[in-house]
Amino acid sequence: MMPRGGAQARAEQLATLDKLAHEMFVAPEIGRLIDELVPYGETLDYDSDDAALIRRSARDYEKAHRVPPELSAEITRQGAIAYEAWVDARQASDFGKFLPYLQKNVELKQRYVDCFERADETYDVLLDDFEEGMKTAEVREVFDQLKAELLPFIAEIQEHQDAVDDSFLHGNFPPDKQREFSLEIIRRFGFTDDQWRLDPTVHPFASGTCPTDIRLTTRYAEDNLESIFSSMHEFGHGCYEHQVDRALDRTPLCSGASLGLHESQSRMWENLVGRSLPFWRYFFPRIQDAFPELGSVELETWYKAVNKVQPSLIRVDADEVTYNFHVILRFELEQDIIDDAIDLADLPELWDAKMKEYLGIDVPDEARGVLQDVHWSFGGLGYFPTYSLGNVISVQIWERALEEMPDLYDQFEQGEFTPLREWLRHHLHRYGRKYTPRETLEKAAGSSLDAGPYIRYLTDKMSEVYGIGAPV
Amino acid sequence: MMPRGGAQARAEQLATLDKLAHEMFVAPEIGRLIDELVPYGETLDYDSDDAALIRRSARDYEKAHRVPPELSAEITRQGAIAYEAWVDARQASDFGKFLPYLQKNVELKQRYVDCFERADETYDVLLDDFEEGMKTAEVREVFDQLKAELLPFIAEIQEHQDAVDDSFLHGNFPPDKQREFSLEIIRRFGFTDDQWRLDPTVHPFASGTCPTDIRLTTRYAEDNLESIFSSMHEFGHGCYEHQVDRALDRTPLCSGASLGLHESQSRMWENLVGRSLPFWRYFFPRIQDAFPELGSVELETWYKAVNKVQPSLIRVDADEVTYNFHVILRFELEQDIIDDAIDLADLPELWDAKMKEYLGIDVPDEARGVLQDVHWSFGGLGYFPTYSLGNVISVQIWERALEEMPDLYDQFEQGEFTPLREWLRHHLHRYGRKYTPRETLEKAAGSSLDAGPYIRYLTDKMSEVYGIGAPV
Repeated sequence: MMPRGGAQARAEQLATLDKLAHEMFVAPEIGRLIDELVPYGETLDYDSDDAALIRRSARDYEKAHRVPPELSAEITRQGAIAYEAWVDARQASDFGKFLPYLQKNVELKQRYVDCFERADETYDVLLDDFEEGMKTAEVREVFDQLKAELLPFIAEIQEHQDAVDDSFLHGNFPPDKQREFSLEIIRRFGFTDDQWRLDPTVHPFASGTCPTDIRLTTRYAEDNLESIFSSMHEFGHGCYEHQVDRALDRTPLCSGASLGLHESQSRMWENLVGRSLPFWRYFFPRIQDAFPELGSVELETWYKAVNKVQPSLIRVDADEVTYNFHVILRFELEQDIIDDAIDLADLPELWDAKMKEYLGIDVPDEARGVLQDVHWSFGGLGYFPTYSLGNVISVQIWERALEEMPDLYDQFEQGEFTPLREWLRHHLHRYGRKYTPRETLEKAAGSSLDAGPYIRYLTDKMSEVYGIGAPV
Repeated sequence: MMPRGGAQARAEQLATLDKLAHEMFVAPEIGRLIDELVPYGETLDYDSDDAALIRRSARDYEKAHRVPPELSAEITRQGAIAYEAWVDARQASDFGKFLPYLQKNVELKQRYVDCFERADETYDVLLDDFEEGMKTAEVREVFDQLKAELLPFIAEIQEHQDAVDDSFLHGNFPPDKQREFSLEIIRRFGFTDDQWRLDPTVHPFASGTCPTDIRLTTRYAEDNLESIFSSMHEFGHGCYEHQVDRALDRTPLCSGASLGLHESQSRMWENLVGRSLPFWRYFFPRIQDAFPELGSVELETWYKAVNKVQPSLIRVDADEVTYNFHVILRFELEQDIIDDAIDLADLPELWDAKMKEYLGIDVPDEARGVLQDVHWSFGGLGYFPTYSLGNVISVQIWERALEEMPDLYDQFEQGEFTPLREWLRHHLHRYGRKYTPRETLEKAAGSSLDAGPYIRYLTDKMSEVYGIGAPV
């Protein structure tokens, strides 16, 4: 909501705060305190808050003290400036306008990587900032599985496109009604006015100052209802932060454990809850009240429509299945970018080629191609893979929740979502960053990273939706 | 716009930032640097930015290093907590609920005062934070003049109440139309979308991150048009910050010189511009278009109505004349509060007595009496007098502007406000905090603090409006 005129000052302010925070954290005295505390922490119960605080802070310090404060500030400052350049470039659909800023961001990221010990792959260092401890090789293995299983499946779905009609999802839906209905849903999930907000924005996100002040944003397009799913998505992020144990307030442990785990929560509420048939058994009559033009649509038809699989240009608009290939494309390009294996000026061309290869899509312009995402503008290389990891993790956790609460779908049909939310609090959210992402996943899902459940879920659900080889 | 749940964390964050900023500023190294720089600064041109930066920073340091960082942080933290208590107390109209928080705030302010050398009067120390260098005795002299001249004048106006009919100012005015019309006005003043915002709030204010990112807030009541005047008022504050010389960006000089000078700018746009007849010659046909129910009102009748003088309960709703007595009442009570001359529990009673004495008003409840203002909740004792000083100063500056631009009112009739804005930039705004408030007033008005012009302006204008002893 900031006026454009504030961008430069905002960049300076963020850089100043980042530099100060970084300097204070990496001060030798903090290092000495941590050295003293680590042996003490090892005498404590591993699960105690104090032990976790020492363990996690020592790890954060080990990473942070390698990066000179000037570099850290420069990355933040350049990111804020490049963001404005990206906004202009996207508007003009002209990658050339963004290129010099991207080059600067990549240079800074390469200097950043050089601060760390050589990893198996350069990209490991970037990944570690968003998904601590995850290796590029592990991600590649998961993504190779998705490619092997889902690319042929998408091709098969393409042959059954007639099975799903979503024409009624394109109409005239007044934004204020969309907002009202989105609020009706997320209020049932747990949104309250005294601790949450929902505001309009260009690029939806969830943010907040503390667990009792959660800000969700979404965007409303008059001609579709995406805002409803976007609101559920952001609720998932917000709910994770909201339910961190209050004992961790104002400690470095008071947030989600990783971006992948965070995304598992947003995707869970958006897709596993919000695109399920039981959910719509409760809400479909209600959305028909809100938008009378949906009055003649059947529940089953609606359910299929909101699960339609269709290769498309824009990642954030993509369906559950093809979404992953938008991510895989970026994951592959980013490795080449950080390794200087490609000329950045060639990015639009490389982008378009991969879109063609994975999704059979021709990219009409750079705005809807290589310029579509904000992430590279703030130097967020290594971020994208966590979106698909989130998908994978979401179903691992979901299967466990279903095992422990077999009546979960019956509750959804009654508009009851509190048991799910409380289960998530207990098995995941309350821990915050006490444990590594790996440990946290193990606690929540009872298993380590595994693409199997996600692939099964997608193929089962979409086979049913598209009537593909469904068992009788 | 923050959800209530964010208040505690926000308080902690503000206190942390305040403490860190304070600690960094009062560090011995800064003291040494300033000691070194002061003699150098004296060799520079007094009007140069560098000389001003050294001079003003030395003065800020001299004040700041007297206050222990813990006390400074405690005042900020308690202020944020007391604010929430004040909101609740006002809603319940129960001063008792606020009393313990006020007591704590006053204690902290007394500890704050003790950090400084004994002044002529205790209140001088508080006043100095908002109006540097101003003495309680000077304010008292100005206020005594206002009392002597304006109290009998108000009594006289009371006898001519029939001369002004403002019944049409109470109607049904849709907030979105109010916002649109307010924007139409302040856009002509200089508001642009790329550097300003206008948002709704409970208690209007102007804020911003830098001169090119100015945030105005206002509030809309369906049954009156106060939002229009409030928007002009906040524009005045915003315009001062907006027009500070860009060479002062990101220095301690990049803001207004004092609260009194700031208020002179908000009151100028609200009253000297926005309640003038030439202004309405241009805008009245336009407001009639926006609100057709005003179609049958005559311009002269409208002009008199928006200048109606009528003793009332609420400071922020008060007219130009009686407003000052809301301030004088608080100024007098605050001196007794900081001197422990009264029992805080007696405040409601003392408040009501003064309202009766000055304005002949009976206070029906504490919400509309002693609890009406936010200032004491954040410990802002010493702030109120600057409101009336702003009134006084506004007319001193106005007279000079009129002298130099005799066609100013003709320009208003054409909807032309750029020459006034640019004059203010040149004679006041661009200096920011380069000079003391006293020096700054001298530069802008060509005179030192003087209640004469303000009293003349008020009595001339209102005599005409009310047909009191008007010369033929």
